[in-house]
Amino acid sequence: VRNIKATIEYDGTDFCGFQIQPSDRTVQGELERAGGMIFPGRRFKILGAGRTDSGVHATGQVISFGVPEAFPVDRLCGALNGVLSGDVRVKRILEVPDSFHPRYSAKSRTYVYVVLNRVQGSALLRRYTWHVRKPLSIEAIRSAAAEFIGIRDFASFGMPHKSGGCTVREIQDIKIRSRGDAILFHIRGNAFLKGMARTIAGTLVEAGRGELDPRDIAKIMGMRDRRKIRVTAPPQGLFLTRVEY
Amino acid sequence: VRNIKATIEYDGTDFCGFQIQPSDRTVQGELERAGGMIFPGRRFKILGAGRTDSGVHATGQVISFGVPEAFPVDRLCGALNGVLSGDVRVKRILEVPDSFHPRYSAKSRTYVYVVLNRVQGSALLRRYTWHVRKPLSIEAIRSAAAEFIGIRDFASFGMPHKSGGCTVREIQDIKIRSRGDAILFHIRGNAFLKGMARTIAGTLVEAGRGELDPRDIAKIMGMRDRRKIRVTAPPQGLFLTRVEY
Repeated sequence: VRNIKATIEYDGTDFCGFQIQPSDRTVQGELERAGGMIFPGRRFKILGAGRTDSGVHATGQVISFGVPEAFPVDRLCGALNGVLSGDVRVKRILEVPDSFHPRYSAKSRTYVYVVLNRVQGSALLRRYTWHVRKPLSIEAIRSAAAEFIGIRDFASFGMPHKSGGCTVREIQDIKIRSRGDAILFHIRGNAFLKGMARTIAGTLVEAGRGELDPRDIAKIMGMRDRRKIRVTAPPQGLFLTRVEY
Repeated sequence: VRNIKATIEYDGTDFCGFQIQPSDRTVQGELERAGGMIFPGRRFKILGAGRTDSGVHATGQVISFGVPEAFPVDRLCGALNGVLSGDVRVKRILEVPDSFHPRYSAKSRTYVYVVLNRVQGSALLRRYTWHVRKPLSIEAIRSAAAEFIGIRDFASFGMPHKSGGCTVREIQDIKIRSRGDAILFHIRGNAFLKGMARTIAGTLVEAGRGELDPRDIAKIMGMRDRRKIRVTAPPQGLFLTRVEY
């Protein structure tokens, strides 16, 4: 069996998140269904780098899985895309050592959050942005972003995937970019708690609206209380864009 | 009654085209339904600049309609967007003279066609691009585009909206732009026959694939025969972006 690393893209709109569930449509479920068609009779199981929530998109999610030695790796990308539904695509395939694990081997993840900041919404971008009417201050968003950088206890901003698990994470970088009516938050961290990318994005928007003083973010962190977060950004503006190893 | 010009955007995916139909969901039908809710008891009828096909999008379609003198025009955009479904948005509203007609007053329309030219498709762009695997020659596309410029009989490339109507149109400009894996055709003309933007786009792709000699386009035009067009580009890559007056 060869160990394969695949970079995938998906439109999260019609998925109940990444992680497989018995009765809902998930990205992992769709990938395992496709793999089962290409390798019938084998148990086809995938691992993913990040468990994105329902409605969250990805342009650079990373997964791994095993394929039989005899299967030509250069045909794998086309074979999987031939049976996958159109809202998931395999972009790149690489054979990796058995020791590679998409979650444990990852050094960092980058999420991009897209806010559409104008009075009227967009018909074409509504599935891929958060429409915020009130004009946002880029300066206030940048000040707020700086408060998140470093190794911090993010217990106020998300839940560990295993209850009672560690809530300390490192946010390595947040870049704020303005492109026409859109404001993009590029958030890079070693790992993210459940919901953390969206509570950070929501808190940045709250600061940008002038409804939160960036200096209060440290206080909110200190409370280690998930109920202190007033604004969670909606899922459709969030994209997992990159996982680094 | 005041005459109102509105610029609108829509995601054509879930519409059976622009023009109202008795039993299908159309952009015009959705706009007239919304207007009927804001102006109850009045007959609310709209006119449009271009009748886009089923699945075709718009970022700059222009419509016009009458509103009662007493209605505050500055509230109209928000009022309509408040009742319209999310896949149609009103972007701008302007009061215009009664003589303004969105179709007859228009001097030109611009359509943009987007081709995604790479081996693997995209999960996020599948509703908004035509995925073409075979590498396209930008040079061949530009040579083919030049053949369309001018006042020509486009009978081979589309149908007049009224049977027996004139099939002469003027293509004023076609710009070909490359952006990463995407190739964009910006096509500006005084007016378009039914299906014409998509047969031009399909013919440009055929030339880009090396399957049609650009010099044969003049011959195809001369035949005035709709059956001579081998490739019609699919609707989801087409956007009506601008109407000029």
